[in-house]
Amino acid sequence: MTTPDTLSKLAAVLESRKGGDPDSSYVARLFHKGDDAILKKIGEEATETVMAAKDARHGGEPAKLVGEVADLWFHSMVLLAHFGLGPADVIAELERREGLSGLEEKARRPG
Amino acid sequence: MTTPDTLSKLAAVLESRKGGDPDSSYVARLFHKGDDAILKKIGEEATETVMAAKDARHGGEPAKLVGEVADLWFHSMVLLAHFGLGPADVIAELERREGLSGLEEKARRPG
Amino acid sequence: MTTPDTLSKLAAVLESRKGGDPDSSYVARLFHKGDDAILKKIGEEATETVMAAKDARHGGEPAKLVGEVADLWFHSMVLLAHFGLGPADVIAELERREGLSGLEEKARRPG
Amino acid sequence: MTTPDTLSKLAAVLESRKGGDPDSSYVARLFHKGDDAILKKIGEEATETVMAAKDARHGGEPAKLVGEVADLWFHSMVLLAHFGLGPADVIAELERREGLSGLEEKARRPG
Repeated sequence: MTTPDTLSKLAAVLESRKGGDPDSSYVARLFHKGDDAILKKIGEEATETVMAAKDARHGGEPAKLVGEVADLWFHSMVLLAHFGLGPADVIAELERREGLSGLEEKARRPG
Repeated sequence: MTTPDTLSKLAAVLESRKGGDPDSSYVARLFHKGDDAILKKIGEEATETVMAAKDARHGGEPAKLVGEVADLWFHSMVLLAHFGLGPADVIAELERREGLSGLEEKARRPG
Repeated sequence: MTTPDTLSKLAAVLESRKGGDPDSSYVARLFHKGDDAILKKIGEEATETVMAAKDARHGGEPAKLVGEVADLWFHSMVLLAHFGLGPADVIAELERREGLSGLEEKARRPG
Repeated sequence: MTTPDTLSKLAAVLESRKGGDPDSSYVARLFHKGDDAILKKIGEEATETVMAAKDARHGGEPAKLVGEVADLWFHSMVLLAHFGLGPADVIAELERREGLSGLEEKARRPG
């Protein structure tokens, strides 16, 4: 399993914010507020992802969709960190589930 | 920017399913059904993530939470692929936004 | 407080389906499946409401939006019934919160 | 079709806030901000409804669930008003769909 460098770094940053002064950063504040504040963000960012996709389909900026998915993944990582988990767990699960070494071979061959 | 190997492989697999026989795979079927089917999955998986976090807090399995976030990321990647985008775009955005090289240094120092 | 006739009737129907044979009706099946099945529907119908509103804005049918809000309210009522509550509780809360007798007067006067 | 008095009054209040000074009330501000602000609230309140139901199941206050469903219905009504629709449309749809006069009779008989 390979966790992307960037996600690992981001996970380390999030970890370092735990227990920090709520006034020091947005993430420290989210951890301080706890479960419900983080879960509300998951719901919000999923909704904004749906909205951005609809807008992209009707001529809007695809970059907006990328930004909303980034928000969704970011807050998913805050949630994972809050429960002592991280992106490596998610990526291991995706790899296990998709049998990615096998799938990769198939992906190299025409459909 | 480093795109995670596993996510890159998964993105290649998703790409290979585009335009495939809807009966051949779950992902080919989602692409075939189009925008609304994919967006409904985003809403569903975000809701299930919230439910799994609440359950984990009340004594449930953290593994369930990992599984739901994996579902959410997986379907986010299907959505991105449907719009000609991929996880590398999201990771680049997170890197840009978080200024991760700078943050990484901070993360190494005590809070 | 006045509970709407239609919503009261619907609440009575939902109540009558509790504990019924899961194969006999959609609602009996939802009650039988329990909390998570009902909550997933709340997430789904909220997402579909957002999608229908975006579509309506881009030239789609407003009737579709009405249908999705009806789905959302319907499943909210299934959820309430599952917890021994009903639309009269929600309407009492809205009345309490909005101070509707006072607001009504204001509404009759020009903005 | 009977729309509950309270919902009709609330719809009239919402209507009266359209085009009002955004600083004068919460609803005038939502209308002024437009589609996306209203749709974000739908996603938020649906998520909070799911959270409150999970909490109620684990010993929390059912009153909290009533409050969240009230928020969800309230913001649904703001959305409907924003598109020139109202609760009467939703209730007519529920009545049409459920065939409520027929169902009412059934509800009176033992399951």
